Amino acid sequence: MSAPSDISSVWEELARAGGRIVYLVLDGAGGLRDGANGKTALEMARTPNLDRVMRDSACGLLELVGPGITPGSGPGHLALFGYDPLRFRLGRGVLSALGIGFDLREGDVAARINFATVDGEGRVTDRRAGRISSETNRRLCDRLRNAVRLDFDGEWFLETVAEHRAVLVLRGANLAGDIQDTDPQATGVPPREPVALSAAARPTAELAHAFIGQARDALAGEKSANAVLLRGFHRHAPLPTLQARFGLKGLCIAQYPMYRGLSRLLGLDVAAPPEGLDAAFGLLAERFGDGHDFYFLHVKGTDKHGEDGNMQGKVAVIEAVDRLLPGLLDLQPDVLVVTADHSTPAVMAAHSWHPVPVLIRAASARADGIGHFDEYACRGGGLGLRPGLHLMGLALAHAGRLNKFGA
Amino acid sequence: MSAPSDISSVWEELARAGGRIVYLVLDGAGGLRDGANGKTALEMARTPNLDRVMRDSACGLLELVGPGITPGSGPGHLALFGYDPLRFRLGRGVLSALGIGFDLREGDVAARINFATVDGEGRVTDRRAGRISSETNRRLCDRLRNAVRLDFDGEWFLETVAEHRAVLVLRGANLAGDIQDTDPQATGVPPREPVALSAAARPTAELAHAFIGQARDALAGEKSANAVLLRGFHRHAPLPTLQARFGLKGLCIAQYPMYRGLSRLLGLDVAAPPEGLDAAFGLLAERFGDGHDFYFLHVKGTDKHGEDGNMQGKVAVIEAVDRLLPGLLDLQPDVLVVTADHSTPAVMAAHSWHPVPVLIRAASARADGIGHFDEYACRGGGLGLRPGLHLMGLALAHAGRLNKFGA
Repeated sequence: MSAPSDISSVWEELARAGGRIVYLVLDGAGGLRDGANGKTALEMARTPNLDRVMRDSACGLLELVGPGITPGSGPGHLALFGYDPLRFRLGRGVLSALGIGFDLREGDVAARINFATVDGEGRVTDRRAGRISSETNRRLCDRLRNAVRLDFDGEWFLETVAEHRAVLVLRGANLAGDIQDTDPQATGVPPREPVALSAAARPTAELAHAFIGQARDALAGEKSANAVLLRGFHRHAPLPTLQARFGLKGLCIAQYPMYRGLSRLLGLDVAAPPEGLDAAFGLLAERFGDGHDFYFLHVKGTDKHGEDGNMQGKVAVIEAVDRLLPGLLDLQPDVLVVTADHSTPAVMAAHSWHPVPVLIRAASARADGIGHFDEYACRGGGLGLRPGLHLMGLALAHAGRLNKFGA
Repeated sequence: MSAPSDISSVWEELARAGGRIVYLVLDGAGGLRDGANGKTALEMARTPNLDRVMRDSACGLLELVGPGITPGSGPGHLALFGYDPLRFRLGRGVLSALGIGFDLREGDVAARINFATVDGEGRVTDRRAGRISSETNRRLCDRLRNAVRLDFDGEWFLETVAEHRAVLVLRGANLAGDIQDTDPQATGVPPREPVALSAAARPTAELAHAFIGQARDALAGEKSANAVLLRGFHRHAPLPTLQARFGLKGLCIAQYPMYRGLSRLLGLDVAAPPEGLDAAFGLLAERFGDGHDFYFLHVKGTDKHGEDGNMQGKVAVIEAVDRLLPGLLDLQPDVLVVTADHSTPAVMAAHSWHPVPVLIRAASARADGIGHFDEYACRGGGLGLRPGLHLMGLALAHAGRLNKFGA
């Protein structure tokens, strides 16, 4: 991580103790207007509590990674946390491993696994093996742990994530992560080879090759999950923590592994996964004031419904969040941020590059007096349209956590 | 071109096949309100078709090169095409040579020539020699080709561009382009010397010096065109093409040499020059869907009238473009961009640094619902005010031509 510095390194210089920050991240909440209603999900949602917060907040739009760039969940959150996602690059394998609480160590190479179905001629017919149950997944991982023998001076681990997803971790000297995905991202074609993308990666690529071949043999009798696809190979190098960088002792409240893993990577404490929205907000109320400075509350439903093209579902999640908002406001955080890690327009049923709305509520916020939190209303906000990376600096400042720059 | 990377290199990483993009570039279309009407040319123009497009488009403002920086046509277009103009620097000589279809090779040094008038004491009295005809220009170039002898291990070429403009190309080993312009950009003073700006450029500067002196002798009998002024010395190094960078197979439809030359430099195919606006739009309709992904239609009239301080002429060109717009819309490009490469306010009669309006029309555009395309209306657009470089990333994204970044 010796890449060139950015504005966030100045916040590092200036960081001091101060107030408490709450990030309420509605995953994928940004969107587009649909044909039927002519509104985005945020525009459609009835959010009396959020509306009240908005009137007292500064607002604007965030472009998470860059113009035209559709963020994965990892890069989107890195930007919100003040880590330039072009400078701090993460593999999906590393995130998956961290997300299940796997004790990933420096130098480990992790790759995400999909159990998949291939036909008699080796062509992928289902990249997710009909979304097998987590139970089946665990049974298959057990079998592979017994059947596969990798010949190298090190250890390897295979762990179930959920449904068809698992993670492979290789631990040993001189491993490398620059290896091509074997997931062809399409059906009707065979998996790709785990090609080494550098000379240094050849031994690791051979291990991956051996793993894939032996897994095929061991899974030959399965009807659906008879092959594995690997992607997101990455060698794990610890990142500087939020505490080391900005002096923030953080707590993550998130149900999904990816976000929990990312938080752990950045040195946040991670609360036990809450079951549902009420539990998540309840947990925040319970933990608030327990010695943390930075509370990250992650809401997955907005993204999930967006990915499914379900506009009404997305609206319902936003409205459910709104009903829980008064409890959060009662905690009186010094800084409340509401935003998203990327857009997931229901009309696209996928992540997108469109900027997301953001609000910052704090005593020192230059309140815009805008009455609704959505993509269009926030065009008029005083925060303007700016890179997602900027958010953390503003949050720190509003929490009184940054010294003056220069004399 | 080993300068530090910028956001455009991330688009290179993410590029994939996708839809078709049309860039309609109204050269110098941005402007200022004049005293008589209190409106800019774009505000004044009656553009019912463009207004309709605007209502369905995302819009905003582009700052082409940087704050306060007035772009030449080359840098302005480079930015629009996704090439940071501070990273990719071009000499006017190189552009002139490419614009007349001259087969410029790597290492060639090109300089733009103006035939000019000097008085008995060697002071420039007319930097354009009364805008001599292209016919006269060709006759004078013939004479110079016969009269001038340059003593070096290489070849040289002298080619007419148009009116008073020509181009000089030096071809040989170890030539350099960092040589001071001899055009003093003023009358009443003598031409400047072609001073070498580095030790390596000395031999090339001496060749330029010899050429200028011998040209003065050969042109001594001419009434107006009795001297040459050289500017924009540049050593030609090929640029990475649009296809290599973003997977775009481009077609340029432009009447003027500069834009044709720049397009060729970036690997676009270049259609035969259309005579006038109707022909240009007709050519686009004819060629659309012929295997290109990126169609660049250049309109020069807006800039020309702006440079002449002719507000009404500029308005007329914008209205003429508007009348031709329905034919372009019938082609149903996946992405339509309308913008300018810089402002040329008629009240300044020159290029300027003021941001230009931009619209992006695409199925995935977050339409702003703004009803007119001009500098003031576009302030309210969701694209915000952003660097011109950003445009290509947005166009690629809206054409479905960028993969997701990270997991």
